[in-house]
Amino acid sequence: MSTGLLFKMTAKPGSGKELAHLLVESSKLFDDNPDCLGYVVGEANDVPDVVWVLELWTTRQAHDDAIKAPGVQALVGQAFQIMDGMPEQVELTPVGAKALLS
Amino acid sequence: MSTGLLFKMTAKPGSGKELAHLLVESSKLFDDNPDCLGYVVGEANDVPDVVWVLELWTTRQAHDDAIKAPGVQALVGQAFQIMDGMPEQVELTPVGAKALLS
Repeated sequence: MSTGLLFKMTAKPGSGKELAHLLVESSKLFDDNPDCLGYVVGEANDVPDVVWVLELWTTRQAHDDAIKAPGVQALVGQAFQIMDGMPEQVELTPVGAKALLS
Repeated sequence: MSTGLLFKMTAKPGSGKELAHLLVESSKLFDDNPDCLGYVVGEANDVPDVVWVLELWTTRQAHDDAIKAPGVQALVGQAFQIMDGMPEQVELTPVGAKALLS
């Protein structure tokens, strides 16, 4: 059973695009990780500086292990510096999906 | 530029699994639609009866046209009957993605 992680992140005013860029760069580090089944990073159209991320992983443990990598930690650290508060996180159990491509 | 649509839907108490099932069945009707780049339907782990859906489409218009199909309307109509209030909807501009597979 795969696991979904949905994050809502709010950047400091004017920093939304930079936050989205950091999250995309961070997510790219999972491109060759077979436990990362996919992710989408999207900027909210109607609310400035809000970025949503949905990730699908084989297991929650695989995600928790993957984000410990130094390269990921460095980018996440940069992202936190321009966030306005903590991310909101929702854990999901995927029950249906079609391939999501960029 | 593709478009993302994120929905948070709350079912009437005890109807979350049925709502998720209806949403999966509805989404399957887009499986052969080349404008539907993908979707994920997921049940929230920590909040009963909450279902999230993320869809990616080539354009917003393609989505709006697709949901007019009678088969989709019938399933969406059933879903609304067991929802507790209206869905919350967020429009996204995807800025990065890796294939999301079930």
